[in-house]
Amino acid sequence: MAEQNPLISDDQINFLLHHVLDLESLFSQSYFQDHSWETSSLYIDAAKKLARTELFEAYKPMDNEPPKLSGDSLKVHPKMHQIYQSLAELGVIAATRPVEVGGAQLPSLAAVAAHIYLMAGNLSAYAYMGLTTGAARLIESFGAEDLQRTYMDRMYSGEWTGTMALTESQAGSSLADVSTKATPTEDGHYLLEGTKIFISGGDQDFTNNIVHLALARIEGAPAGIRGVSLFVVPKKRPQGDSLVDNDCTTTGVFHKVGWKGLPSIALTFGEKGDCHGYLVGEANKGIRYMFQMMNEARLMVGLNGVATSSVAYYESLIYAQERPQGRKVTQKDPSSPQLAIIEHADVKRMLMRQKAIVEGGMHLVFYCAQLNDLFEHGDDAAEQKNAGLLLDLLTPVAKTFPAEYGFEANALAVQIHGGYGYTKEYLPEAFLRDQKLNTLHEGTTGIQSLDLLGRKLMAGQGAAAMLYVSKAQETIEKAGSTAGCENLAKLFQEGLQTLQNTAMQLGQLGMTGEIEQMLMHSADFLQAFSLQTISWMLLEQAVCARRANAEGKLSEDFAQSKLLLARYFLNTELPRAQQLFALCTQGEDSYVQMKNEWF
Amino acid sequence: MAEQNPLISDDQINFLLHHVLDLESLFSQSYFQDHSWETSSLYIDAAKKLARTELFEAYKPMDNEPPKLSGDSLKVHPKMHQIYQSLAELGVIAATRPVEVGGAQLPSLAAVAAHIYLMAGNLSAYAYMGLTTGAARLIESFGAEDLQRTYMDRMYSGEWTGTMALTESQAGSSLADVSTKATPTEDGHYLLEGTKIFISGGDQDFTNNIVHLALARIEGAPAGIRGVSLFVVPKKRPQGDSLVDNDCTTTGVFHKVGWKGLPSIALTFGEKGDCHGYLVGEANKGIRYMFQMMNEARLMVGLNGVATSSVAYYESLIYAQERPQGRKVTQKDPSSPQLAIIEHADVKRMLMRQKAIVEGGMHLVFYCAQLNDLFEHGDDAAEQKNAGLLLDLLTPVAKTFPAEYGFEANALAVQIHGGYGYTKEYLPEAFLRDQKLNTLHEGTTGIQSLDLLGRKLMAGQGAAAMLYVSKAQETIEKAGSTAGCENLAKLFQEGLQTLQNTAMQLGQLGMTGEIEQMLMHSADFLQAFSLQTISWMLLEQAVCARRANAEGKLSEDFAQSKLLLARYFLNTELPRAQQLFALCTQGEDSYVQMKNEWF
Repeated sequence: MAEQNPLISDDQINFLLHHVLDLESLFSQSYFQDHSWETSSLYIDAAKKLARTELFEAYKPMDNEPPKLSGDSLKVHPKMHQIYQSLAELGVIAATRPVEVGGAQLPSLAAVAAHIYLMAGNLSAYAYMGLTTGAARLIESFGAEDLQRTYMDRMYSGEWTGTMALTESQAGSSLADVSTKATPTEDGHYLLEGTKIFISGGDQDFTNNIVHLALARIEGAPAGIRGVSLFVVPKKRPQGDSLVDNDCTTTGVFHKVGWKGLPSIALTFGEKGDCHGYLVGEANKGIRYMFQMMNEARLMVGLNGVATSSVAYYESLIYAQERPQGRKVTQKDPSSPQLAIIEHADVKRMLMRQKAIVEGGMHLVFYCAQLNDLFEHGDDAAEQKNAGLLLDLLTPVAKTFPAEYGFEANALAVQIHGGYGYTKEYLPEAFLRDQKLNTLHEGTTGIQSLDLLGRKLMAGQGAAAMLYVSKAQETIEKAGSTAGCENLAKLFQEGLQTLQNTAMQLGQLGMTGEIEQMLMHSADFLQAFSLQTISWMLLEQAVCARRANAEGKLSEDFAQSKLLLARYFLNTELPRAQQLFALCTQGEDSYVQMKNEWF
Repeated sequence: MAEQNPLISDDQINFLLHHVLDLESLFSQSYFQDHSWETSSLYIDAAKKLARTELFEAYKPMDNEPPKLSGDSLKVHPKMHQIYQSLAELGVIAATRPVEVGGAQLPSLAAVAAHIYLMAGNLSAYAYMGLTTGAARLIESFGAEDLQRTYMDRMYSGEWTGTMALTESQAGSSLADVSTKATPTEDGHYLLEGTKIFISGGDQDFTNNIVHLALARIEGAPAGIRGVSLFVVPKKRPQGDSLVDNDCTTTGVFHKVGWKGLPSIALTFGEKGDCHGYLVGEANKGIRYMFQMMNEARLMVGLNGVATSSVAYYESLIYAQERPQGRKVTQKDPSSPQLAIIEHADVKRMLMRQKAIVEGGMHLVFYCAQLNDLFEHGDDAAEQKNAGLLLDLLTPVAKTFPAEYGFEANALAVQIHGGYGYTKEYLPEAFLRDQKLNTLHEGTTGIQSLDLLGRKLMAGQGAAAMLYVSKAQETIEKAGSTAGCENLAKLFQEGLQTLQNTAMQLGQLGMTGEIEQMLMHSADFLQAFSLQTISWMLLEQAVCARRANAEGKLSEDFAQSKLLLARYFLNTELPRAQQLFALCTQGEDSYVQMKNEWF
């Protein structure tokens, strides 16, 4: 019988939380003082168990039978009804929210360690929860008391779900062009009119209401992002003791490539002129509010990228251990038994590459979660500020690396399955389809690269970049005095120096107003910066593993595997980073020179 | 109204045939003397027209409704019935076959220039033809007269289709492990018994017979590849004037990820003990026969990879020209109109990358077709031999580069479509699914890398490699004296030197018996060798374009675009090749050191 897919490695999670990121230290912050290893572990273990049973068992059925629209009523997969209850009872939606709003006030770092199992088991099922958290948080941060009581409370409790209704057909990457209309009424609410697309979880049949957080433009508002406001637009609005229809119509379902358990719909507000919307916070500040939540949304995408490549990695690892095919090139006896394909060097290479992408990406996203905890709830003001700076800088990388390299990892999982990988009888092709969304939603890779280079890197006269370098330098120093890591430290340091020089040169272009010149290779810069950052993560893991092993807290085997993993990635990818950094400053402008009609 | 997708660029085809590869020169070989520009163009134009209308129009319907099995009868998409007739009438199956067997005796170079349109328009539809050609060719080359008359003639005429029935569940990459049994009878035929899987086009309902070319083991044959024989196994066997059932049962249909118009089936021979097979050539030489046809099969995969990335490239180009979204980063007025996304530098980069992959890969596959023509039919014996050597060396690259980098190109086409790219309403996601098969069938990428490094590179004491270098040197010399290409020539030469040094060092490992050490980085070697080779192709194109422009035979714009394309690829990818070559010899053995249980 085939081994069961673990989705995520327990050893890796324990290693990150105990030996690398030190979850323990967060419990000494006053905000998290009621938490401990025990409370965190209880949550993580419960999530893990649910993920490996109910969620993962439903993954394939939900992939096979996406939600269906009949008339204007949408039905999701029947299994989602029970799954939603289980997830809501687990307390996923408000896990990190304050006790005072009904949450568990868990550190984000503990929450991501739990939620990554849920995502790996069934990303669509988890998505309903994550979307609800995100929508409710906007009300928590910016909404008035009555909105909080009427909507946020019911969302955090799991009674109603939430969505983000941002995109319109002419306004995807360019939210400045949102055109849904909001007309004020004398009763205080607004009447909304317009059509939103790609609304994930925008309709379902397992709760009796759905709350959309929608961007719209109040009549007479200025053009561009400074004229966009944020509204609560429920599917049904409370009226006395009952819920009445709020004129939000599901006008279409997109036939997505993956994430098949989660509907993506077109949603029309105000077909009958009776769609009430309730302003969140102040008028015309909608985009600003959204962006304050953006880091977390982007980290969730990164976490999803890691989860999706992890589940595929283990699927291909189990296959490689069990599938006999071929013999060593030096084995000339054709009647000798075939080997498990993991014995072939190239299959090992493909597994190693996946493992590096998964475990490097996981570390980065977890690190960002820890920074988020310190930024939002740290006791020390200076530490808090620095955490925020570094988090801002790392977010585009934590969003993009797991999505882009995760897609490559997912393709390798298919490849290891050979011809079988090209069939729907095996899971990797589904994970490959799922992964592709992560380079597109919550800001495409191109958008992330502009964010990194045009905004984050230069923020505060490069303060975040300097912080990055000094933190990385700490790893270099530790590595320099850790047996087996010395050469890797040197290699990494060279890369870090190139990163600094490149950032400096690009910064000068920016300061002299050569913005387009500066941003020309933004995609190359993001890729190089990502490779450098993941190298950092894997080097830090190798150092921590060696040290923990020296202290008798971790096995020699585990430490050795971490050292090999760092060696693989640094030797293979750091030279690529060097070369991509060089492209950013050497003025290679071939594609900019191309006239449109030459393509 | 949206522009029509051209599938393949006519300008690029004309450029390759006229100015780069010189199709003209083939007509002076006696074997091709009845052909000319006119006859070739007639065929190419007819194929192009069919591809852009009937074939491309049926692509999406065929992708949506794959073949269905009811009972043991398989029904393909209804549109295939007419399409098959059109393709058969065009003469696709026997286009390159000799006149004496009913073919048109066209040069392969002219045939690929026609067939690439067909593949780009509808890869599944073309595949029935390509498979039939391949199967019939085995009979043409190795079969006895009666097999040729009974089967080959009807296959070349299009009356019956053909398949390759090689794979079994325990014998995919390892054909040495084929176990289908063939028992001789007194009547001269064999009785076959066994199950084949992944038989493309293994069943259909548009011709009244199908001819399988199957590998099987004659009772008592030696173990391994030296005991495998090749058989003709028709679905129905001729008996007197009629066709009787030959006990070949379609026992399953694989649910493939792409190529949805083409069934891939499980086929059981001899369920009732009455499956007749007819030995092709001599017993126990089946694998040898197959391998003599392997180059062409692999080039067809490469051609398909190029076609599939080309059609997606044009889909994304048209979208980028028509889709307004966002403004220049320097444009601060939010009421200014949105730009077509092709105006964004990063979108141009994604288009440029696709274009380089498509046009570089196309050149390589076409070059191989020309080498094939010279190898099989050249008048000059020395030229013939050299063409064969170089063709052998380049085949794994021509098979793999379009598949692996084509997959990346296809992902970029999805990416350019943004959120829409993630829906089935647009075509790029389908092309992405189609492309993935090309890294798997006809030898996975891993197999190709072993073929290149373990067999082809070292063949004849490195004679093929030396030929490669001297041919590439010719391009360097031309480039050195072509305005705008001088620096690229230097860059390319450095890479070529590294390639030689690496090959030399790896060859020495091989000669001292360190085979596993030599092959440890075979995948990296294949990738580096591919990047070097595609750089060569793009540099050669830039040189030819500049020279043709100087002679007044080609527009300045076209020449300039080719120069930029070469500059983009050489500056971006040659440094990567350098670095991958270095990995091959520096003893980086991290993944080999990993114990199985450490993953």
